[in-house]
Amino acid sequence: MSRSPSPLYAAIDLGSNSFHMLVVRVVAGSVQVLAKIKRKVRLASGLDQNFQLDEAAMLRGWECLRLFAERLQDIPSENIRIVGTATLRVAKNVDTFLETAEQILGQPIQVITGEQEAETIYQGVAHTSSGQGNQLVIDIGGASTELIIGQQYDPHILRSLPIGCVLFKERYFADGKLTQTNFDKAIQAAEQALKPLVVDYLAYGWQRCVGASGTVQALQEVLLTQGYDERITLEKLEKMMALAISCGDISQLNIEGLLDERKPVFVSGLAILLAIFRQFKVKQMITSGGALREGLVYEMIGEQRQDDVRQRTLSGLKQQFRVDQPHATRVSEFALSLCQQVSANWQLEDLELHALLASAAQLTELGLLIGYKDAHQHAGYILKHATLPGFSNSQKQLLVTLVSQYQGGYDVEQMDKLAGITSTTTLRLARLLRLAVIFCGRRQDSSLPEITISAEGDKLLLHVSKYWLNSHPLVHSELTQEALLTLEIGGELTLASDEE
Amino acid sequence: MSRSPSPLYAAIDLGSNSFHMLVVRVVAGSVQVLAKIKRKVRLASGLDQNFQLDEAAMLRGWECLRLFAERLQDIPSENIRIVGTATLRVAKNVDTFLETAEQILGQPIQVITGEQEAETIYQGVAHTSSGQGNQLVIDIGGASTELIIGQQYDPHILRSLPIGCVLFKERYFADGKLTQTNFDKAIQAAEQALKPLVVDYLAYGWQRCVGASGTVQALQEVLLTQGYDERITLEKLEKMMALAISCGDISQLNIEGLLDERKPVFVSGLAILLAIFRQFKVKQMITSGGALREGLVYEMIGEQRQDDVRQRTLSGLKQQFRVDQPHATRVSEFALSLCQQVSANWQLEDLELHALLASAAQLTELGLLIGYKDAHQHAGYILKHATLPGFSNSQKQLLVTLVSQYQGGYDVEQMDKLAGITSTTTLRLARLLRLAVIFCGRRQDSSLPEITISAEGDKLLLHVSKYWLNSHPLVHSELTQEALLTLEIGGELTLASDEE
Repeated sequence: MSRSPSPLYAAIDLGSNSFHMLVVRVVAGSVQVLAKIKRKVRLASGLDQNFQLDEAAMLRGWECLRLFAERLQDIPSENIRIVGTATLRVAKNVDTFLETAEQILGQPIQVITGEQEAETIYQGVAHTSSGQGNQLVIDIGGASTELIIGQQYDPHILRSLPIGCVLFKERYFADGKLTQTNFDKAIQAAEQALKPLVVDYLAYGWQRCVGASGTVQALQEVLLTQGYDERITLEKLEKMMALAISCGDISQLNIEGLLDERKPVFVSGLAILLAIFRQFKVKQMITSGGALREGLVYEMIGEQRQDDVRQRTLSGLKQQFRVDQPHATRVSEFALSLCQQVSANWQLEDLELHALLASAAQLTELGLLIGYKDAHQHAGYILKHATLPGFSNSQKQLLVTLVSQYQGGYDVEQMDKLAGITSTTTLRLARLLRLAVIFCGRRQDSSLPEITISAEGDKLLLHVSKYWLNSHPLVHSELTQEALLTLEIGGELTLASDEE
Repeated sequence: MSRSPSPLYAAIDLGSNSFHMLVVRVVAGSVQVLAKIKRKVRLASGLDQNFQLDEAAMLRGWECLRLFAERLQDIPSENIRIVGTATLRVAKNVDTFLETAEQILGQPIQVITGEQEAETIYQGVAHTSSGQGNQLVIDIGGASTELIIGQQYDPHILRSLPIGCVLFKERYFADGKLTQTNFDKAIQAAEQALKPLVVDYLAYGWQRCVGASGTVQALQEVLLTQGYDERITLEKLEKMMALAISCGDISQLNIEGLLDERKPVFVSGLAILLAIFRQFKVKQMITSGGALREGLVYEMIGEQRQDDVRQRTLSGLKQQFRVDQPHATRVSEFALSLCQQVSANWQLEDLELHALLASAAQLTELGLLIGYKDAHQHAGYILKHATLPGFSNSQKQLLVTLVSQYQGGYDVEQMDKLAGITSTTTLRLARLLRLAVIFCGRRQDSSLPEITISAEGDKLLLHVSKYWLNSHPLVHSELTQEALLTLEIGGELTLASDEE
């Protein structure tokens, strides 16, 4: 009964806007979050023109650290990292703050440089997102903004600029007024700061742009609430600015999906983001689940850098939910072999679709840990609520949709709701996945048949040897049942036997 | 990647109404169902007056066994048990059926006696339900009905009678007519068969009556669908009979919540159950998740007979979902200590309530495996869909309600919906659970304070030393937050510090 629990780790980030504490443990090879504690300290707003941090701000900070200290005392020192960022970098009287802060925490605090911050943010992003080629990572903080271009786990070019949403709030929206003039001033100031980087960054180039931190997350939340897809574009940012201006004043800011606590610094962050989009000609930005704190955690637990973040996510889920792994591989490979045969006729040539089908196939049995009845729905529930590093929001939705329909009836309505993928394509992937599950029913590699499958419009023609079908009456009956379900959704599944 | 999967087990039951196959594996010490395959073979209806099984029935049986055989071939023989019951016991030409059947399955079939059947059913029930004292277990099959009185894992008195829902359908409802006369004849015949047992069984006595098998499960499904609680009583059975009679004919049988496939044998099962309730003066019956097949499985895997089925369920869930076990114990013990202090004033003297609170406390962190955000809702989802041997339906609902509110807001509406427990009591248990979770936040036994707690109406007064509160500002802030939430639901939580 008294097995010693998995060791805990804590990462604390004394930011210019908020202080954050993240407590995690490692379970079955995966990082499990146990506590997230955050307080809006707004340290940066206590900085005067002489870069002196005022007493009120220090008191707010120390009060917050007393809360953190309570949990921290039970975690071994070597499992703790505490870093201070922009405001503490520039505050002339930082030592006064740190002395008391370290006393409260009983742990050393490291004020990191902008470059160290950028490097750690990059690791946090790299461990929680995936994709080939270069990525431009952007993190807009309270008093600094980091811009990094890197590939996989290697940042190639990185910079930290002294612009941020708390600073810009104080400077350009101090009166709370939301006018085009205020926005223009803020955007211009940000563009000024960004300009020196533009030539180098554009020369380096990137395949995708990833945003981290509160400003970007709040924006994504707003977009999703308002029925947009999750991609941030210049057009959407400009609409958001117009909407903000129409509210007139920060105290009147009324944007659907925007939390009250974010409101004070939302418009200033928006202005900086607009400047970045314009200067770097960003076409679209996706968001990352991880940034500074996650980077600190991954640095501590020495997580091996897997080339493929997705693979780590899949392995982690399978291990955590005690999935029969050889069977997951079997279903996945079988689904892929079906997909390859019909990809030309079914317009499934995009290899990304193959990868997503293979991923879904590996996760079908996640739900069995909860229960046999409706196991497909349980698997969908788990995926919907789990964090899936390496998969974007819309990829995650596709996985949820496929996995929750690997057995039972089809739910075409759910397929209609997916962003960035047609319901026809989703339905085709689902049909292939279900066939793979049926054929792998015996959970034996040696029992799998040779199958020829061809597609024509919504029809699938399946060639299996008569001998095999006769010796697998249960699979046969399930295929017959599947053919009936396919008819209901306007498709066709025909079984043909070669030998006679 | 090629870790060998957990071994599979299969139990097959060639019943008089249906053939069933159950395939399971053992994961983290718990039985996980991988497949349930069932076919309505209605073997008993192929038995003529000379106890000859006709060819049509045999063919239906063999066809079904071919399906089972496909899966069976991949499971080691020592992990398979196949039994035949009543119809095969009495069929004179059983060998003809068995010879081909064993050939198809590639495995021996054991036709078990009524007493063996009763014994195995009892084990299936004992492993999936709990409670002190004697229990009367009743299983109404297609051609036999088993009645057992036992305690824990020991059956004390058991009998198998040759009455069943398929036989009685043929005998008393052959014309499909649903009249009081037909019902009376069926009930009288069943009472005749039961009478010889009555004196002995009543002398033995029981504290609760548990029903297994299709008839009872279908009945429970109907009751729940129609908004009743799950307990089966004579009054409800008589209402159901009147409802059936009002339909006039089995082909017109229209009872909300009753599946089509059950309709042919529902009324005959109902008649037998009525006879049992009348003869044995049963006040109420609950249902069991397990019976013959589960008994076969538990006999094979040699599951240690834990005195406490509930404890096995709790341990299994904690292990499967990788819960921090020392922490679960900590929260549970703390919740109990709070409950003991207020049980008199809060009418929580019933020790069963203490046990349920302690169980809920152990399961709060189930949902963390799915995700940190809304972990309480995930835990509620898991419990709602998992099978919880040892907990009745209404106890399970209470666990779901408590666990899904161990943090976050209160949901009083959910509490109003519980059967058999007032929302006041549920709310009180939830309040104690939440306090325990808050006080155990540091996940350290050594950090727990001495607490005196007292209750008066909806007010809770909490005495904690000022010193402890000062050194736990995070717990203190969470208690303040909890006090606010408590006000919202019309309660009061006051913190008092003894030392000054």
